[in-house]
Amino acid sequence: MLTPCDTGFVARLGAVLPEGTLGVPEARHLEEPRGRMVGQAGAIARPRTTDEVARIVRACGDARVGIVPLGGGTGLVGGQIMGQGPAPLLLSLDRMCALRGIWPDENAMVVEAGMVLADVQTEAARVGRLFPLGLASEGSCRIGGNLAANAGGTAVLRYGNARDLCLGLEAVLPDGTVFDGLTRLRKDNAGYDLRHLLIGSEGTLGVITAASLRLFPQPAARVVAMLAVPSPGAALELLGLVGQRVAGLVSGFELMSRMGFDFLAQTMPALRPPLDPVPEWQVLLELELPEGLDPEATMAGLYDAASRAGLVTDGVIATSQAQAAGLWELREAIPLANRKIGAVSSHDISLPLSAIPGFIATAPAAIADLGVFRVNCFGHLGDGNLHWNVFPARGKGRADHEAVRDAVKTRVHDMVHALGGSVAAEHGVGRLKVADLQRYADPGKLAAMRAIKAALDPNGIMNPGAVLAQT
Amino acid sequence: MLTPCDTGFVARLGAVLPEGTLGVPEARHLEEPRGRMVGQAGAIARPRTTDEVARIVRACGDARVGIVPLGGGTGLVGGQIMGQGPAPLLLSLDRMCALRGIWPDENAMVVEAGMVLADVQTEAARVGRLFPLGLASEGSCRIGGNLAANAGGTAVLRYGNARDLCLGLEAVLPDGTVFDGLTRLRKDNAGYDLRHLLIGSEGTLGVITAASLRLFPQPAARVVAMLAVPSPGAALELLGLVGQRVAGLVSGFELMSRMGFDFLAQTMPALRPPLDPVPEWQVLLELELPEGLDPEATMAGLYDAASRAGLVTDGVIATSQAQAAGLWELREAIPLANRKIGAVSSHDISLPLSAIPGFIATAPAAIADLGVFRVNCFGHLGDGNLHWNVFPARGKGRADHEAVRDAVKTRVHDMVHALGGSVAAEHGVGRLKVADLQRYADPGKLAAMRAIKAALDPNGIMNPGAVLAQT
Repeated sequence: MLTPCDTGFVARLGAVLPEGTLGVPEARHLEEPRGRMVGQAGAIARPRTTDEVARIVRACGDARVGIVPLGGGTGLVGGQIMGQGPAPLLLSLDRMCALRGIWPDENAMVVEAGMVLADVQTEAARVGRLFPLGLASEGSCRIGGNLAANAGGTAVLRYGNARDLCLGLEAVLPDGTVFDGLTRLRKDNAGYDLRHLLIGSEGTLGVITAASLRLFPQPAARVVAMLAVPSPGAALELLGLVGQRVAGLVSGFELMSRMGFDFLAQTMPALRPPLDPVPEWQVLLELELPEGLDPEATMAGLYDAASRAGLVTDGVIATSQAQAAGLWELREAIPLANRKIGAVSSHDISLPLSAIPGFIATAPAAIADLGVFRVNCFGHLGDGNLHWNVFPARGKGRADHEAVRDAVKTRVHDMVHALGGSVAAEHGVGRLKVADLQRYADPGKLAAMRAIKAALDPNGIMNPGAVLAQT
Repeated sequence: MLTPCDTGFVARLGAVLPEGTLGVPEARHLEEPRGRMVGQAGAIARPRTTDEVARIVRACGDARVGIVPLGGGTGLVGGQIMGQGPAPLLLSLDRMCALRGIWPDENAMVVEAGMVLADVQTEAARVGRLFPLGLASEGSCRIGGNLAANAGGTAVLRYGNARDLCLGLEAVLPDGTVFDGLTRLRKDNAGYDLRHLLIGSEGTLGVITAASLRLFPQPAARVVAMLAVPSPGAALELLGLVGQRVAGLVSGFELMSRMGFDFLAQTMPALRPPLDPVPEWQVLLELELPEGLDPEATMAGLYDAASRAGLVTDGVIATSQAQAAGLWELREAIPLANRKIGAVSSHDISLPLSAIPGFIATAPAAIADLGVFRVNCFGHLGDGNLHWNVFPARGKGRADHEAVRDAVKTRVHDMVHALGGSVAAEHGVGRLKVADLQRYADPGKLAAMRAIKAALDPNGIMNPGAVLAQT
């Protein structure tokens, strides 16, 4: 049973921390990006060192006060938003954003958890290296949160998810122990992989305080194209063709439906689509090339082969960095346009690749009796990760469909689950999908998760109510 | 407290299993490749289905009988060899070797745990795909064991360790629950990652019964060279140069010392070295190339650049597949030569890349007072993973140094640990390195490991005494 973070606890905790570590949470600490959930907290702690984090966690454990770790606050599933239960302590990592070390020859760097993702990218670029994790929120999300949530993004196809970019972690475990696992090793089979257990556990098994990250050489060249494809199935065939010819060099393969461009035209008319009329389906294809392959010629060769196979019907190859950035800007503006339109229900799903065309073809019919909707389907097709978002018809608003939102979600999630997919593909479970996890997860997995949570956090102080319902 | 797998238990277990599932272990089931450890077991179970595995695990749990999972039996650290304690049940997966499904368009396949690694490779190749895990023992090791031990091998630089090649697992947990996690998804953040917890846990948290594996397109071409390098430091600079120019295309980067070739000359004189005289240090470099890059021209370009930079002094580029295979054969014969010579002590270590030249230069002096030794240093330099093996002087034998073996190991391991390295890089902990893990592991990690083991396997039946000492 947890107790609230009240003034008495704050006073006692303040006595073991440097002046100014504790404060009153501001509204921005309790909000999430879409403004759909509001949190509460008795206080906010902003420690400067791992030792201070450990002292905070120990004090919370002794007093049975819940802790909600806070990175950049950009999570979309409420992992950082605790609206119910005894008021927790917010534990912000925003003062722990140092670069602890960088080893270009080893392709490795060690950063503190509070470093903003864009700063991680910049520090890597400063020594001629690439840190490939890239997301729409990279200007404000923080690497500790990216790892706690195992963030995905646009470069997963080539470089993997956040977990694949992490060589080691430092974390404070729920009993206040510091796990010092900041290795720079590529191979280490000395015991269970706590790193991978903590990554993706969304702050429920400990607080990540620093990470050792993999860097990569900068590619000799990048080339981007926007391609019209006849169908999602053709897009998948194109992915196969490209993978066969330039294995390992595909760094982006994003599917976009015409609805996304309609939304852009409606909300951000200054962004001009490269193909006119806008095709029903488009793929943004990016390659990262080694020395010796001419970017435009390589892309043109792929285009010709795909065109002969009937897999692309039109397209534009960026001939400058500015043009390439412009194509990516369209892709990255789609989530912003979605927010302006206001979704009835958003779905962050993944599917086995071969199930995708069938899902896209049949899912709208599965919710047709619940209302007249517009669907914007887009996402990281190369990873089987779609954002399949349901919007009101023109002239209607999100509020007009309040009554059916849960039904829409359940229909879509049931379909995804039946096809062997995941309803929490890259955004995680947070608090929004706790019931989904309960409904869809393998029972053996759920039981093992509960056993692990109880073993490492017997008092349930770490991010209470996230991922697993409190018992 | 465990009880032995005695005739009474075998009779009771046999009653709930199909005829012929249980048998008497043969000598080969209780041996390990180097003949240095001998196991014991009350019986061997050879189930045909996951359900049979679950029945066996439940019965063992009820009776408190230990289970030692057995794959191909090729592990080098005794994870499959229980020599002490109440006789366990050996649980062989050798009858569960089916291909459950293969999806070339998804680059995925699902296989049972007992499939021999070479057969996994063959099944992938049959549909034009690559399964890149490759090890010396691939003709007899089994994929379940590879995953339980998180095997490494020669292609880690490009494709990662075994864990990076696994999309999902099916496993029987210590309470007999079947964890059904055979997803083919590339992104799935629905809860804790049990897959990564089981991988590398060496059978102490459950029995892997099947795996969903990542496949890759076959590269358009491969090219292999054997290069003389002035020093290990130059080899690392060469790795950087190659990575910069053909980022992502390096699939092998193996360092070999002249001692390895001396051993080959002594034990397998039919194998002829490509460079004469044999250089002090050589690198076997393999590239996997996309369409559009000429193999020999690309390698020659790298050679010229490296030569101008003083990083290679001589070399040979294979101009046929047979020549390439011949170069790899030399590398793969070195462990066999080592066995024929007979090591005083073998060390499977990894180091931060920048610490490697210093280690190689100073480690021999650190053991010089313990005897006159020959050191054969070779391995996967691109991963920072060295096999630094200590041999008797010519004319002496392994037995002449029995008294100092432990001291040699401790000196070497202490050095590796002080440099931030791992003493269990790719072979795991097994039973051979339980004390090392105890000595070198982060205390917070060890405590968390014990808590997880106790939570998932409270009776301690799964591979007793492996990885963690029995309490």
